[in-house]
Amino acid sequence: MNVFVLNCGSSSLKYQLINMKNEKVIAQGLVEKIGEEISFLKHTSNCDEIVIEENIKDHNQAIELVLEVLQSREHGVIENMDEINVVGHRVVHAGEKFSGSVLITKAVIDALRENIKLAPLHNPANIIGIEVSKKLMPKTPDVGVFDTAFHQSMPAESFLYALPYEWYQENGVRRYGFHGTSHKYVSERGAEILNKEYYDLKIITCHLGNGASVAAIDHGKVIDTSMGLTPLEGLVMGTRPGDLDPGIIPYIMKERNMTIEEVDQAFNKASGVLGISGLSNDFRELTEAAEKGNKRAELAIDIFCRRVKKYIGAYIALMDGVDLLIFTAGIGENAVDVRAKILSNLENLGIIINQDKNKSRGKEIKISSDSSAVDVYIIPTNEELVIAREAKKIIENNIKNLIIDILNENN
Amino acid sequence: MNVFVLNCGSSSLKYQLINMKNEKVIAQGLVEKIGEEISFLKHTSNCDEIVIEENIKDHNQAIELVLEVLQSREHGVIENMDEINVVGHRVVHAGEKFSGSVLITKAVIDALRENIKLAPLHNPANIIGIEVSKKLMPKTPDVGVFDTAFHQSMPAESFLYALPYEWYQENGVRRYGFHGTSHKYVSERGAEILNKEYYDLKIITCHLGNGASVAAIDHGKVIDTSMGLTPLEGLVMGTRPGDLDPGIIPYIMKERNMTIEEVDQAFNKASGVLGISGLSNDFRELTEAAEKGNKRAELAIDIFCRRVKKYIGAYIALMDGVDLLIFTAGIGENAVDVRAKILSNLENLGIIINQDKNKSRGKEIKISSDSSAVDVYIIPTNEELVIAREAKKIIENNIKNLIIDILNENN
Repeated sequence: MNVFVLNCGSSSLKYQLINMKNEKVIAQGLVEKIGEEISFLKHTSNCDEIVIEENIKDHNQAIELVLEVLQSREHGVIENMDEINVVGHRVVHAGEKFSGSVLITKAVIDALRENIKLAPLHNPANIIGIEVSKKLMPKTPDVGVFDTAFHQSMPAESFLYALPYEWYQENGVRRYGFHGTSHKYVSERGAEILNKEYYDLKIITCHLGNGASVAAIDHGKVIDTSMGLTPLEGLVMGTRPGDLDPGIIPYIMKERNMTIEEVDQAFNKASGVLGISGLSNDFRELTEAAEKGNKRAELAIDIFCRRVKKYIGAYIALMDGVDLLIFTAGIGENAVDVRAKILSNLENLGIIINQDKNKSRGKEIKISSDSSAVDVYIIPTNEELVIAREAKKIIENNIKNLIIDILNENN
Repeated sequence: MNVFVLNCGSSSLKYQLINMKNEKVIAQGLVEKIGEEISFLKHTSNCDEIVIEENIKDHNQAIELVLEVLQSREHGVIENMDEINVVGHRVVHAGEKFSGSVLITKAVIDALRENIKLAPLHNPANIIGIEVSKKLMPKTPDVGVFDTAFHQSMPAESFLYALPYEWYQENGVRRYGFHGTSHKYVSERGAEILNKEYYDLKIITCHLGNGASVAAIDHGKVIDTSMGLTPLEGLVMGTRPGDLDPGIIPYIMKERNMTIEEVDQAFNKASGVLGISGLSNDFRELTEAAEKGNKRAELAIDIFCRRVKKYIGAYIALMDGVDLLIFTAGIGENAVDVRAKILSNLENLGIIINQDKNKSRGKEIKISSDSSAVDVYIIPTNEELVIAREAKKIIENNIKNLIIDILNENN
């Protein structure tokens, strides 16, 4: 079975074609600047890598182009569309509707539309991806895999805010959490590496990228995660503030004569380590600047690390301990100094880092010392593989049910 | 030396007259509903307790009445005003201006006025108290003791938000923290009880009242506290939400067609355990309702406890451990079940509660078991005593400096 994994953003899309027999990526790529004058497609397969520049006016044209390249004589990896058995779509926000992946029907699309208000930046692009996919590959089933689904196991005392209860009942204000496929992948992979039962472990997963979140996975279930109703909450991020005193908003609106839209824009684009440093949201740049004596760059990194450390402590308290602590995503996999700073002075909590091993970047490796009671690992994330696996599982279950139906009818 | 401690709210005031020779309270009382048709003064001394009902139109009249009662033939405890040697004023917000208590001069009052924007509900009443006190007792020195001062030792990586840096520079947006005199009193008292050096200990203080905050005091210095720019942040409170996804605000304004003022009002008055339960912000009522099967009351208590537990974990991570954990204020001193819930399942962090001892209310007592690595105590708070001590210290220092000046002039 080949799964075509599609992740549509507002002006970009990423894809992978994965052979599920061996879970190998047959081809992958991305289209950027959709709708702009010069868009481009970057496509990579085992054999070669190409970049096509042209005016790609919308997602329809983008996906058409990708499918063309996949079948092209020169760069193609498949003979025809029949070799794509399923399309797996990344969808950001499922609200409370879906706690797992689903076969996409018209009813599902309608439900996703209802959740646009919860993810106005992401869900519309995800829905366009699904519609174009249905149009261009009408015979191929589509599966939706949700960023929020993995976190749906959280209990009410974790997902409810201390706000008027009707805001939850009538407007869906609650903690949903994001990066679910990543937290799922690295935590399951972690248990596999330790050769232990997933359901026996207390795991904390730190997904540290430009967007960043932490999850506490207690005996196989997420019991808390740092992102909330929106992806603004929790950790300090590249350009987002994370947890905040809600009193800051009316105060700053008055002080700087800002509208709520301007404040929201500042929270999404001008806060986080960029806001503190005034320099960059790129940790390589920040680290370099800090080494050259830039105090605000150093402060930005310190504040970022301190917040992660606080979450690790909070989740250790919630689970009364932790067996496995995992770092993933851009910063989590690659920023050696950031990991070292987060993990410093946690000896009394049973976390001792091996400084040599911690120098690794982007590969699966244990970075705790042998005397550390807690196992600490870098595990590169693979959201596409989770989406492909989920798509395969959903299709297989549906086929099984279909066969049972047919057999029942024949009996 | 007798210190008159004055704590002015917007329509109420509390006072104590304390003899600093033995730190005994000579008299204490409160005036409520200032400016309303029927105000009342409740006054207690060693000898008796009286309640006076009358129309008290402003703080001037209220303080005048209190001073009258203090000197009255029937209920008085002092002969004349000369027996009040210092007035110690509680002031909520000192901004970054004062990291300790100060003798109040005109310049200090001007500085407090500048901080009104940071504490619009509290600082104006505090300033009125100071002005009336100066008018009625022109020869008596006034000392300001700030709720925020104890937390001024926080490092920048703790007090800075991940927001545009100019919001800090130009508008003072940073973590200040509150309940400083309470955190100071119980932490110092805790070290005293343990008979250990304050500067050798890692202490976490949980001030749990209708307003609630936690502080991490590492070797004598506050390194973090849960309240921030405003008293909305951190723990779940009676009617306030604590930490929140900042993305909730633009979302709910749009969803429920609310203004920022209405949202702010909801955060201050209709959130917290009241918002979740829809019932009450009183933990006795909530506990009773929960016992009778009210699910939302139970949920409110669970969410409150979970947040405190997360902060304890976070601060343990920041300090790499904790020696002494202290509970104080209304809920912290009296809510047996709440403490039990917060402290459950923390064995792996070295915290083991003695269920029998934890049944105590409102008295100084160790509630951890002998096998607990961490000492856990209830310590009733005494903010008035801290204010009186600070006032005495400031006056003594000023007198010392005055004498040195005179001696220098004579030499």
